Amino acid sequence: MAFDKLLKFFAPKDTIFQPLFVKVAENLTAISKLLILTISENDTEKRQVHIVAIKDLEHEGDRLTYELYKNLIDTFITPFDREDIHQLASTMDDVADYINKTAQRIELYKPKRMMPAYITIAGMILEASKHIELAIKELEQVKNPEIVNNACDAVREIESKTDKLYHESIIEIFRDEKDAVELIKNKEILEALEKTTDKTKNVSKVIKTVLVKMV
Amino acid sequence: MAFDKLLKFFAPKDTIFQPLFVKVAENLTAISKLLILTISENDTEKRQVHIVAIKDLEHEGDRLTYELYKNLIDTFITPFDREDIHQLASTMDDVADYINKTAQRIELYKPKRMMPAYITIAGMILEASKHIELAIKELEQVKNPEIVNNACDAVREIESKTDKLYHESIIEIFRDEKDAVELIKNKEILEALEKTTDKTKNVSKVIKTVLVKMV
Amino acid sequence: MAFDKLLKFFAPKDTIFQPLFVKVAENLTAISKLLILTISENDTEKRQVHIVAIKDLEHEGDRLTYELYKNLIDTFITPFDREDIHQLASTMDDVADYINKTAQRIELYKPKRMMPAYITIAGMILEASKHIELAIKELEQVKNPEIVNNACDAVREIESKTDKLYHESIIEIFRDEKDAVELIKNKEILEALEKTTDKTKNVSKVIKTVLVKMV
Repeated sequence: MAFDKLLKFFAPKDTIFQPLFVKVAENLTAISKLLILTISENDTEKRQVHIVAIKDLEHEGDRLTYELYKNLIDTFITPFDREDIHQLASTMDDVADYINKTAQRIELYKPKRMMPAYITIAGMILEASKHIELAIKELEQVKNPEIVNNACDAVREIESKTDKLYHESIIEIFRDEKDAVELIKNKEILEALEKTTDKTKNVSKVIKTVLVKMV
Repeated sequence: MAFDKLLKFFAPKDTIFQPLFVKVAENLTAISKLLILTISENDTEKRQVHIVAIKDLEHEGDRLTYELYKNLIDTFITPFDREDIHQLASTMDDVADYINKTAQRIELYKPKRMMPAYITIAGMILEASKHIELAIKELEQVKNPEIVNNACDAVREIESKTDKLYHESIIEIFRDEKDAVELIKNKEILEALEKTTDKTKNVSKVIKTVLVKMV
Repeated sequence: MAFDKLLKFFAPKDTIFQPLFVKVAENLTAISKLLILTISENDTEKRQVHIVAIKDLEHEGDRLTYELYKNLIDTFITPFDREDIHQLASTMDDVADYINKTAQRIELYKPKRMMPAYITIAGMILEASKHIELAIKELEQVKNPEIVNNACDAVREIESKTDKLYHESIIEIFRDEKDAVELIKNKEILEALEKTTDKTKNVSKVIKTVLVKMV
């Protein structure tokens, strides 16, 4: 592997993009933890506190994404392809958006029961977020591209596992849930959860694209 | 503010893009008015006339968008970044698409009652369209960039208000609507309305990006 | 028409992109045929075989799309605009994705009855795929740009016809289907079918854009 090329990824002088991406990644991990708290909490009032916190972090993510775009316009030389910076910022933003969307649906629909699959998938989303955070931070040190690559593979694997669980859960509710309104609620919350993991996979794809260009 | 730079936005010699964007903007305002007429009309036959008119204007919007893309390919020098022209055309097209989608759902689902929130949100969409039209026209004269900026802020604010109303309405139907089929209808029409205001926000974002690049 | 320009489209030396696009196109036709088999089969076990085959071909499509992207990064000179190659690969991938999504919904929801419209639309999707395959192959020989153009127009026409049929079918289920859960199933399968034809239209748009740039 061409480590010398990798060293240029986040050049020592890049004090703009790398720290911002780290903040976005840490924000994703934090928001994923809040999603687990939201789903675990049965008391709707206490749950509401976590949902509001998710909304706040999602706004913080928007602010950081805007800052990344703004710097992209203002900065002549970027640490890597402008289009890739844009894609990375935009796909990471999508993850936060979908976690927020999931929380919103829980808030709005107030399902009678939280399906066990919810908490399992939320746990997988947290895992994926942690892998993304690791990959982004490793891109800073660029000592070991394999770590970045493995983290991306782990995200893909998590997405694939979630997909299976999502399928089983959808089959389950269409088979067992006789109340059409509850079925709609569970189906749409599951869809938001599954889309969130899709979005983490998109992030891993962009990071892989960046790696491919460098090695 | 660098007015001299702004003057280059729609250069006096740009007789292609600016007039087309004005037409697209006026089309959006017209189609928004038709959406209000559609929702206000209880007679399904009379309503159908407005829905057909929306479909026609949406096609007219498609035609104008295609013309913008075509000119983008044929024209070597553009008044501003090619990517921004593309984005502006594409996001404005999205607004028309979602107004049409809303009208289509009303036509297809024939909800037993029109929720009061429909008309309120449709009014907000018209307001947002008028602000977009103003911003686009102001970009022509470039006498006062603040007007453009304020119009964009107004669109964002409208979107934020609509979002709250949408949330309240979804909570309401999941709490009060016992007929699952009517619930699906109302939920999906509300979602189309809310997505329309999302799309107006996207337009305002692109216009802001263009402004940021110029000042 | 400037045939000399067209000759440059897939230059004789392009042994990378053109053969890959032909493979993707042939894959689309194959996957469309499997969708018809899926819908025609009433025995759920036998049906499952076709659904798994669709999933396999969709993965094969993903692999080919990834190869196209990879070559786009590695290849300095491309037969036509990089952005267009990207768009063409991405829109063709969308078609396969939506055929797979349709099959997935049939597998997950297990609707009590397959609506007659399903098979009609699946037939139209196969027709559209064949036109796309023809257009892609004609781009290789570049003897007659009219053939490419007509194939694209045919795809648009198919999409327009499907749209009408989709509308009629949605009206029908909201009028006749009293079981809310069955209504949801049919509505979502129809939506996936209709979105698939939308995606074929997007492919035809990209091919047309490429043609416009060359003549």
